[in-house]
This record gives sequence, structure tokens and C-alpha cells, in this order.
Amino acid sequence: MGSGGFDADRVRTALKAQTIETPSWAYGDGGTRFKVFPQKGAAQNILHKLEDAACVHRLTGVAPTVAVHVLWDFVDKTPEEAKSCAESLGVRIGAVNPTVFEQNEYKFGSIGNPDSRVQEKAVSHISDCVEIMRKCDSKFLSLWFADGTNYPGQDDLRARKHRVADNLKKVHDMLDEGMEMLVEYKMFEPAFYSTDIGDWGMAYLFAKNCGPKAKVLVDLGHHALGTNIEQIVALLIDEGMLGGFHFNSKKYADDDLTTASMNPYELFLIFNELVAAAGGNSLYDTAYMIDQSHNIKPKIEAMIQSVMNIQETYAKALVVDRKALEEAQKAGDVIGAESVLKDAFFTDVKPVLAAAREEMGLDPDPIRAYRESGYQEKIEKERG
Amino acid sequence: MGSGGFDADRVRTALKAQTIETPSWAYGDGGTRFKVFPQKGAAQNILHKLEDAACVHRLTGVAPTVAVHVLWDFVDKTPEEAKSCAESLGVRIGAVNPTVFEQNEYKFGSIGNPDSRVQEKAVSHISDCVEIMRKCDSKFLSLWFADGTNYPGQDDLRARKHRVADNLKKVHDMLDEGMEMLVEYKMFEPAFYSTDIGDWGMAYLFAKNCGPKAKVLVDLGHHALGTNIEQIVALLIDEGMLGGFHFNSKKYADDDLTTASMNPYELFLIFNELVAAAGGNSLYDTAYMIDQSHNIKPKIEAMIQSVMNIQETYAKALVVDRKALEEAQKAGDVIGAESVLKDAFFTDVKPVLAAAREEMGLDPDPIRAYRESGYQEKIEKERG
Amino acid sequence: MGSGGFDADRVRTALKAQTIETPSWAYGDGGTRFKVFPQKGAAQNILHKLEDAACVHRLTGVAPTVAVHVLWDFVDKTPEEAKSCAESLGVRIGAVNPTVFEQNEYKFGSIGNPDSRVQEKAVSHISDCVEIMRKCDSKFLSLWFADGTNYPGQDDLRARKHRVADNLKKVHDMLDEGMEMLVEYKMFEPAFYSTDIGDWGMAYLFAKNCGPKAKVLVDLGHHALGTNIEQIVALLIDEGMLGGFHFNSKKYADDDLTTASMNPYELFLIFNELVAAAGGNSLYDTAYMIDQSHNIKPKIEAMIQSVMNIQETYAKALVVDRKALEEAQKAGDVIGAESVLKDAFFTDVKPVLAAAREEMGLDPDPIRAYRESGYQEKIEKERG
Amino acid sequence: MGSGGFDADRVRTALKAQTIETPSWAYGDGGTRFKVFPQKGAAQNILHKLEDAACVHRLTGVAPTVAVHVLWDFVDKTPEEAKSCAESLGVRIGAVNPTVFEQNEYKFGSIGNPDSRVQEKAVSHISDCVEIMRKCDSKFLSLWFADGTNYPGQDDLRARKHRVADNLKKVHDMLDEGMEMLVEYKMFEPAFYSTDIGDWGMAYLFAKNCGPKAKVLVDLGHHALGTNIEQIVALLIDEGMLGGFHFNSKKYADDDLTTASMNPYELFLIFNELVAAAGGNSLYDTAYMIDQSHNIKPKIEAMIQSVMNIQETYAKALVVDRKALEEAQKAGDVIGAESVLKDAFFTDVKPVLAAAREEMGLDPDPIRAYRESGYQEKIEKERG
Repeated sequence: MGSGGFDADRVRTALKAQTIETPSWAYGDGGTRFKVFPQKGAAQNILHKLEDAACVHRLTGVAPTVAVHVLWDFVDKTPEEAKSCAESLGVRIGAVNPTVFEQNEYKFGSIGNPDSRVQEKAVSHISDCVEIMRKCDSKFLSLWFADGTNYPGQDDLRARKHRVADNLKKVHDMLDEGMEMLVEYKMFEPAFYSTDIGDWGMAYLFAKNCGPKAKVLVDLGHHALGTNIEQIVALLIDEGMLGGFHFNSKKYADDDLTTASMNPYELFLIFNELVAAAGGNSLYDTAYMIDQSHNIKPKIEAMIQSVMNIQETYAKALVVDRKALEEAQKAGDVIGAESVLKDAFFTDVKPVLAAAREEMGLDPDPIRAYRESGYQEKIEKERG
Repeated sequence: MGSGGFDADRVRTALKAQTIETPSWAYGDGGTRFKVFPQKGAAQNILHKLEDAACVHRLTGVAPTVAVHVLWDFVDKTPEEAKSCAESLGVRIGAVNPTVFEQNEYKFGSIGNPDSRVQEKAVSHISDCVEIMRKCDSKFLSLWFADGTNYPGQDDLRARKHRVADNLKKVHDMLDEGMEMLVEYKMFEPAFYSTDIGDWGMAYLFAKNCGPKAKVLVDLGHHALGTNIEQIVALLIDEGMLGGFHFNSKKYADDDLTTASMNPYELFLIFNELVAAAGGNSLYDTAYMIDQSHNIKPKIEAMIQSVMNIQETYAKALVVDRKALEEAQKAGDVIGAESVLKDAFFTDVKPVLAAAREEMGLDPDPIRAYRESGYQEKIEKERG
Repeated sequence: MGSGGFDADRVRTALKAQTIETPSWAYGDGGTRFKVFPQKGAAQNILHKLEDAACVHRLTGVAPTVAVHVLWDFVDKTPEEAKSCAESLGVRIGAVNPTVFEQNEYKFGSIGNPDSRVQEKAVSHISDCVEIMRKCDSKFLSLWFADGTNYPGQDDLRARKHRVADNLKKVHDMLDEGMEMLVEYKMFEPAFYSTDIGDWGMAYLFAKNCGPKAKVLVDLGHHALGTNIEQIVALLIDEGMLGGFHFNSKKYADDDLTTASMNPYELFLIFNELVAAAGGNSLYDTAYMIDQSHNIKPKIEAMIQSVMNIQETYAKALVVDRKALEEAQKAGDVIGAESVLKDAFFTDVKPVLAAAREEMGLDPDPIRAYRESGYQEKIEKERG
Repeated sequence: MGSGGFDADRVRTALKAQTIETPSWAYGDGGTRFKVFPQKGAAQNILHKLEDAACVHRLTGVAPTVAVHVLWDFVDKTPEEAKSCAESLGVRIGAVNPTVFEQNEYKFGSIGNPDSRVQEKAVSHISDCVEIMRKCDSKFLSLWFADGTNYPGQDDLRARKHRVADNLKKVHDMLDEGMEMLVEYKMFEPAFYSTDIGDWGMAYLFAKNCGPKAKVLVDLGHHALGTNIEQIVALLIDEGMLGGFHFNSKKYADDDLTTASMNPYELFLIFNELVAAAGGNSLYDTAYMIDQSHNIKPKIEAMIQSVMNIQETYAKALVVDRKALEEAQKAGDVIGAESVLKDAFFTDVKPVLAAAREEMGLDPDPIRAYRESGYQEKIEKERG
């Protein structure tokens, strides 16, 4: 038993089995519409990104896969080259993200565009992505669309819905057995009046309409303020429709901040649902991916920090006394039930995290280890 | 042709066919948690409420039905008496609303309550409501639940979902042919952490799970700030799942203000979808109901004002030049398409509204007519 | 040194010096506009309220004063009687709250009402409150107004501002030396279009206009979603204009939930400012008051829980490594600076809290102590 | 008298005296962080921007000045050249906007940066801007800062406040007699945790601290959802602290949409305050500027549309029956007062706008006139 009264062995075992996918695009320069602050050594191509992701995996032990954004990543490498390059670095290609919002044709949308030729271009690009998935042994097609309208009247809302539904169905039917398409929703930005896949309900409907290979992707930054995200997660689990996460944090809009930085208790409540649904000792089986855009933090350190925050939150969800929780709920003891969660949330799990890392042959403090590794100095020098 | 370039005959014909249901509870005193300001002459029982609703109908010509809230309205009258009383006054009983949030047993919910006896009490009450529907020839069972939790951990979110689903299914299966149950959603209040039916997606899922007699009810005040309500309306229409509306207006939360008082353009955009879905010359066939709680405006005048605002908004949606809109959309002319809507919105439809009222034998200015009718003085005197 | 690397003596010393005021009105029944769920044994008069507040103080040791709401509390006791009664129970009367929103005259506001006679009634009531302050040795006049409008046009916004300013000035000038008036702001509810004192900026302006005895009161539930409250707190401290707090928690609107229940990190960040402004080892000198309205939690237990949550949060703010924080800030190490705060937030301060309680002769677990004390059974029996 | 019962002469006279400043940066390509869709013929330098602004002025007659952003606009032209170029085109340089957020030094802020050298760089740039104002006979220094923090702990909030205050004071003291500095506030973006000038209250405090040449700038897109902007406007007018507007529209965040596109009634209520404060027949004297970022609409047409929307809204505010409004307010007739505003809002002012344009020698439909003018074809050809 650990000092907090929990079974530390059980927690360490669970922590060592956790995996979190990091996104290739977060290793390159990015920012806001006002300014991108370039960072020395920031990744400039897929090789750099895989190197950085591999570095994060080496230090944390739980980030073995890397999500790719097709138009940004497969410029100077073929999928086969990228796959082999990743493997030689000790990581694998994870979710494949089509890029259908960065070309001029997509001004009025991609799969929801009124122009059928643009729709076809988008679908064709996604078809190429499925081919990349085959070549990279990737399971997840991760779909986010910037589609929507900026002004009332700009387009027919029901017509857009039909286009999106039809094209998503086409995409679904391209998938091989074992592949999964994740339909992401977002309240707004860059569409500022209506977004074609604007909330979990729309993503659910579109996914359901597609068939069994389609599920819903939850990005923590894509909801209206006040939304109870853990309830949506519980619901999607219950419907068998939770496809995965894009982890990040927000205070206002889609701020894309470090996971758990603004309201760590909210993330804990989400993990509490994921652990509860898996029986208390592990995580619900779905895709755990980070999607952040760090504007001022150093890219690699921030990614390590995010991975660590997710691990810590998972550990806290593992130490929830589920029997006591259930008893308090049955007794109508609202304060007692809430206290079970709060006690877990405030349990000091740092020692068990450190122990798990040591058992994995890792430094117990990955950020310090990164700072001392010389990696940053090396890439700053090498990448010019 | 009207002066604004539209076919006034067509608009008048449509306006004369419109109907809007008013709620019995809005004629009695109500308010906020801080204070209910009593109004002289406010309805104190079902007879008063029916009289007031009949008065609104006499003056507007388009409010022939009255929604009832069972525990508040069937205290001193049987359903048969209420029905006959309504008819003698020139109105009919409309949607029947169960009241499952005002008894002490409902502290932890009604159909979502962990205690099966409380669930049964709620379902049994709803069963009584269905019996009332039969006796009153009412088509709509309008279901709003205060169910939810106030604190994390208070209850198991998935267990609550199952209870709500099971009990709604039981309710559905009680309904006779031709009856419809409308599942209302609400983001928050009085539940302040999770609400069992918290958004349109949840209401949709529950309704779909019930069967063909269940649809979704949209209350304009029950969304997160910023939500694009007209898109939800378009979507529900497209799915055949729009069951009806509770009209009101909000600036902040569920403020229950006079319909169209805070953002009349938003209401217009909703009506634009409803008219478009019906082909341009009439309204989509669904239940149009008002649900407001006027704190400081005189109850009956405010109801007349709401009815008039809805009529005016409908008229504006009728004068949208749909051909021009479609052409602008096809041409990618965002400004042109938006202007078609704005032109309709700012068209002066007051003359055509006045003309329609006159053709119906009504005063063209129902509020002035009410003020001059002596009705207010009469009820203030009679109802003590 | 404590196990977390902090000086436990210093923290215990600070914790033992903390005081938190509880509100008399939270011991009686209250709830939402939909339903008040009565609780057995709930306080029915000022004596009951003082008894309950005294019980909370006995168990926590840090709640020696009780805020009163004049129209609710001075019905069957004179101020002198209430004061003496409080003292005999071991507590004192704290902030005096005028009640100017529960009479019919206040339909269009109190000190902002267009009718000068209503303004005078309100000011006269506040004058009575100042007299009560004198009799009860109370320092704080705590001013919250429901004033505002529900509809555009209802009143002239600048005229309302002038009335509020003039009347607040009159109130200010009634105060004796050493008294302070706290001007509370609120975004909305019960006013749903404009609120006369709607944000901190308006409260600041009104207070500044009054003179040196007026400051701003921050209620944690009265802001727009997303508002950075700790920044407002820091600013008001810097301007010498922070008058005090109403602690509670919210997820949506003015939900009046248990303090720290929705986003404990936010409360920590607020306390971090309060401790930093006081030099790191104590709290900034201002009025610390709770204002909650528990709908479903047992009143007294919930109050104890709130007091404990505030203590725990204060303890966490005390263990912030301010030197490390400053160094990280100077070095532009965003991750490092953030980690200093997170480390403090997740430090297990329960042992030091327990030790502080034991040094005060208290049970280290006040909620369990309450449950075992027999107090609840006693009041349920005695108060019928 | 016009057909709507108002004095059309009076309205035309007022409309012809209105002026609205357009921003140079809105004529060049801009967009979201995801994609900038380039437009054919979009302005690429200050000359192009002035030509486009002059075109908008030629067609609308009310846009004689152009706001400039210094780092973007004074690249290949000196201020003297720009001034003379503007005048030869029939327009003038208006507000001068420093650009202190687009260089790498500003990663942690400009005037709020912890590094005094960066602060000095920013202040020095602003000093250059004041010199430009002198050379261009510009009255307004329009100050928006991206300053803030992205994470708790990143910087000391009070220290940032002091730096901002001190540097703004320096800027104030650089101004010549007759010059004015406008302090703009914004809730968030690009800072995602705290923004140094985050709301009107902070802008007010900073401006007040500076002295008589500093006032507050209201950008319609920079508030929390639900904020009553017209109340802030009324308040700032009353305090003599309203410095001007950045007009645009939003549904979610700082969406930078066409003015009046999302909630035209809200803009009307703002103009209602501006007209009321000026006595009913003209506009309150302050700086009226547009600040939009059109992503998909054609830049010049969208600017014309914005100017027209502002004119139309002003016209509607001019036809408010202020005597009837005041009487209804005095009588406590909430419905009557609201109806006075609604009647004005829905008054068809298009004929009087057309007449005013004709009296100014303009085409009554400026957008059609633009489309027929050949200007767009010309710039697409010439600017390559």
C-alpha cells in the first residue's frame, strides 16, 4: 500500500501500460493569427518531428506513436520512408490527419463545399491518406474539418449537412477492416457563424450514419464555455461511440494550451470516467492523443509537460476509492461522494509516478532530464 | 404586390393560418429566486389562466391553445371540466406538461433519481398526464426534467443516463397513436453540475431510443452562449426530429424574457429555416409554444407582445426572396446572400400584419386594444 | 520542515490566524426558482442561525463571525439581543447586509429606481443597517443590489447610474470612522438586460466616487464565463480597493455552490495573489466571507466543507516557493514558473491542516466530528 | 415627414454629416491562424490601401479618413508621402496604430514585458508613431497591445500592471495638445490566460492614470459573451472617457465579422446611446472606426457593406421617438418603452438613406455601384 492508502503496485502497473500519442505538428513553429514566434531548433520537416517525438518518448516512456498531418508531413518523405524513419528512431506513425483547409479551393469548405469538384478534391486527398495509413500500419484516420459558414445566408445549412454526411460515408467505406475514422467537432473557428460539425451531437450523427468504423473524437478545447465535457465522454462511452481525444486546455476559446493547465480538476473528472468505464484499474480503450499549439513555451519541454500532466491525472483517477464512492452515492451522501473524488485528486501521486518511471529505466523527472540531455542545444545547432 | 416588393396576399394568407400556443403558467405570478413581484389580477387558478389565454386569443386570433402544467392546473378542476371550460371560452387545452420537480422526493431527480420508487412516482405522474391528454384531446406530452447533479461524484453519470432512457421509453409506450412526446433539453439550472438531458444531442438520443412518437423540443433559452440555434433547428428538421419550440429570449442564461427581445435577428434566422423547410409559403409543421416568465412586465400584455413578435418575425421570413438567396449562394456571393436575409429582416411588415388582423376581424394593434378593453381593470377587481 | 519541503510551523501558524465569516442566510432553507427543498432542522430564525454558525466555529475554529441580512434576521430579535445572543454562543455579528430587493416597491430597483420615494426607502433602510452596525460593533456594510433592467429602453442607463452613484455617496457619508462599505457587483440575475453594478469596473467607479470608506466586494459567482478573477483581485489589491470576498463556486452562472467545488485551481490562484500581496506568510487583510446557497447538501456540513476547502486552499498558497517562482519568471521559464504553482497546488497539506486543528484543540476531521456530534439530530428534533 | 412618421430632413442632414474611418489593414489579405485566403487585387502596400479606402469614400461619401498600422504601412512610403498620397486621392490619414506585437522581442509582451529593453523598444516605436501623427495631422493614437500571459505564474500580474501603467503614462506625455490616445481592451487572444488590458475597467484605470489626453476605445468584438456593451458605452460617455470605437461583429470570440452581421439590434442599442447622449439629432463626438478582418468576403465590398450598415443603424437610432420613450419610462411602461426602440429599429430607413446619398451626388446603392464601377477588375489586373 502507498502512503495515501492506495495500492501503489496497481497504480504503477497501470501507469506503465499507458500510451499517449504526440502530434508531429506541435514540434514545428506555430502560433496565433497575430504572430508566430519562431523557436530555435524547431522541427522543419518530418524527420525533425519524428526525432523530437522520439525524444519525448525516450524520456517519458509512454509516447510511442506520432500523429501526422499529411500535407505538412509527407512533403519530402514517402510514407514508407517516414514509417521506416520513425521505427529506426523507436516510434511509430499513429493517426493520419488529412489536411483539407490550407488550399485556396477550400475557401467555402472542403467536404461541405457547394462545389462538387472541391468536395471531390477533399475526398480524393482523404483517400490518399487511407493509402498512407495502409503503408504506415496506422489504425486511425483523424478527421477535422474547418468547414462552415461565416455569415447567415452564405449557404444552405441542410445542404451542407447532406454533403458532409455523403462524403463522410464515402470515406468510411474506403477504410479497411480494423481501421477507424474519428470525427472531430468544434464549436467555432475558423468558421464564425456555423460550423458543419459543430458539437458532439453532430459528430455522433455523422459517425452513426457512416457505419461501424466511425466514432467521435473529443478535443478538450472545442466546446462552449461551461460545457460538462466529462458527461459527454461518459455518454459517448455508453453509446460505444467514443473514438478518442485531442488533449489540450483552454480558458476562453480553442486556446490550445498545455493539457491540464487551466482546470486540472476537469481533466481529472474526465479520466475518472475513463477509468471507471474500464473497471477501475486501467483506461478505457480509445485513442489518447495530444493536440496543442504552444506559442511561447519551448515545444519539446511543453510536450513532455503535457504527457506528464496526463500521467499524473490518470494516476489520480486510479486512486479513486470506487467502493466508497458507490456507497456514498447510494446513501445520497453528496458531500461524502464529492470528497472521495477530491481526496483522490489531491493525493500526492508524484512518488508513485517517479517509481513507475524508475521501473521503466527512466529519469523520474523527465523535464529536468531533457534540460540536462543536451538535446535542445544539439537541435538548435544542427537545424540552424 | 406589397410596397416592399413582396406578395402581400401570400403573406397575409400564411399569417392567418399561423397558430401559437400560450402557457397557462405564464398568466400566474412567477419570478426569480430572489423575489416574485405579485401582479394585481394575476391568474390564481386554471379558470383564470384559461380566461387570460382566451383573451390573448381573442385579440391576436392566433393563440387557440393553452399548454397546461399538471400539478399547478388540475387542482380544483378535473381535466374534463378544464377542457369544457376552455372550449366555452373559445380555446382548447394544448400540450400537457407533467410537473416532476416540485415535490420533496425529487431532490435527487425524478426519472433519473437513484431511488426506483421516486422514478416510479414520476412515471406514474406522467401516466396520469397521458390520461389527461386523452380526456382533453391533447396531442403533445411536453417533457422537461430538472434532473441532474450539483456536484462531481454525486451520482454515476452513466447510471443516470440509463434510468432516464428506460423511463422515457416507458412513457413513450404509454402514448396512443397520434400522440407525441417532446423531449426538452437544458444546459443548466436547477442542476448546476450535470443535467441529465443537457443539450439537443442528448434529447435526440433519448427520443430516438424511445421510438417514433418521441421528438426534440427546442427552448430558445436553454443553450450555451454563442450556440447557433438555427443550425440545430435545421438539423432536427432534416432528421425528422424537431418536435416543437418553447419561445422566449435570453441575454445570459435561461432568462425567460419576451420572445425576440434580445436578438430579433436570431429569431428571424430560426424562422427562416422553418419557412424554407416548408417551401417558402408556410411554416414547418411542429409545435409552436411560448414559455416565458415575466418578472416585471404585465403578464397578459407581455404575452400579446410575444405573440405579435412571433407573427412579425414569421412575416419577415415569408418575404425572404428565396430565389435570389439561392442564386447568390450558388454564385458564392456571400454579401449578396446575406443581404437577401437582411433585406427581408428589415422589411416593414407592419402594414401586412395590420391588414391580416383586419381581415380576421381584429384590431390591428392588439396591445392598444387590450389596454382599451377594460379586461385588466376587470380582473384586478374580480380576482382581488 | 514538512514532508513536502515546506516549513510546516509557518503554515500552521498562518492557518490558525485565518478567519472566515459564514452567512446567517445559508443556515435556513433556500434554493432555486423551481423549488426549495426544505431540510429537517434548518434554521428558522436568527437564534437558530447563530447556533449553527457557532457550531461551525466550534468545529473549525476559524469562523468566529456571522454575516446578517437585515430583513431576514432582525424580525424577532433586536440588534442588541442578537449581538448578546451571538456572544453567548461564542461568535460575533459580522457584515451587515441590507435587504432591498424583497419588497414590492423594488420592482424597478432600489437605489436605482426611477421613483425617488423608493430610493429614499432603500437609503433609509440602509441607514437603519448602519445603526445596527453601531449596535453590533460591525465593521462592514455589505451592499448587493438587484437593481437593473430587464429590457432595452426600460430605463435610461445614465440616469440609473447617477441615482446609484448619488445614493451610494449618501450611504458612504453615514458611516462612522472605521466602518467600511463593500460594493458588490454581479453580471446578471435577477436583472436580465442591464445590471446597475454589473462588473468590477462599475463597482470600482461607484466606490471611488463615494470616498475612502468604500471598497469593492468580489463574489466568485458573479462574472462572465472565462473571466480571470485572480487578475481582478490582483488589480483591486494594487489599487487599494479590494474590500472583501463572497466565496462560492460556479460552473455556469451564479450557481452558489460549495467553494472550490468546480475549479479548485482557480481558487488557489486567487489565494496565491492574496498571499503574495501579504508577503508570503499570511493573507491580505480584507473581508473573507462565504456566500453560498446549498440546494441539496446538508446546510451545516456544507458550510464546514466550504470552510475546510478555503483553509486547504490557503495552505496550498502558503507553500508556493515564491523565490523559485520569481526566479523562473525572471528567467522567462514559463514551464518552471507554472510548475512552482502546480507543485504547491498538489502538495498534500492535509497533515498540516490536521496538526493545526489539533493545536487548536479541534478534531482533525470537522465533518466527521459534526456527524458524530449529535448536533444534527438535536436540531432536527428541537426545531420541528 | 417621412412615411414612418419621422422628420426625414433631420435624418438626412445628420446622415450627411456622419464620418466613419476605415482601416488600411483590412484592404490587404488577412485571415485566421489556419489559413489566409488571398484575394485577387488585394492591397499590397500603403498606396493600394489608400486607393481602396478612397474608393470606399467615393462611393459612400462618409469615409474620409484611413487608419494606419505603422509597421505595415510605412515601409515604402514616408509619412509625408503617405499623407500627400492620401490627399491626392481625396482621403486623409486618420488614427495611427503602433505595431508592437509582430517582432520576436515581443514574445512576452511589449510595454508589459518584464525586460525593460523590450519596453523601451515599444515605447520608442510609439514615440515614432507620435512623430508620424504630427507629420500626418493625425489626432488619434490608437493603442492595442497583445500583452498578457498564457499560463498562471508566467509573470507577476501586479508587476505587469505597473509596467503598463508607467509606459502608457510616458506615451501620454509625448502627445501634443489636441492629440488623444485611445486605450483599447480585449478579453483574450493572443494572450490566453491573462490580458494586461483585459476589460473596459482596466482600460479606464490606465487611461485615467495617464491624464486628460487618454480615453477608452471600445472594440465590439473584445468582450465576454453576454456583455451589455451599450451599458459600457453609456457609462464611458457619462464619465467623459469614451474615446472611440472599433466596429465589427462577433458571434463567438473576436470574430472580426462585418459590422451588424450577427446581432444588428445590439449595434442599434449602442447607437441609441450615442444619439441620445448627443441630444437626439446627431452622434456623440468620438472616433468612429471600423476594424474588421474579412476572411471570405471581398475586401472592398465588405467594407462598403460595413459602412452602409453603420449608416443604416445610425438612421434607425435617429428616428427613435425620444419623447415617447421618456414618457413610457416615466410611466413604468416597460412594454411601451421597449416598443419605441423596436419601432425605430424596424423602421424602413432605406429610402432616407438613398435620398441622403443622392443629395451627396452618390449612387443610392454603393455596393451595386462598386460592382459596376470596374474598380475590382482594374485592381485585379494592375496589382497582379
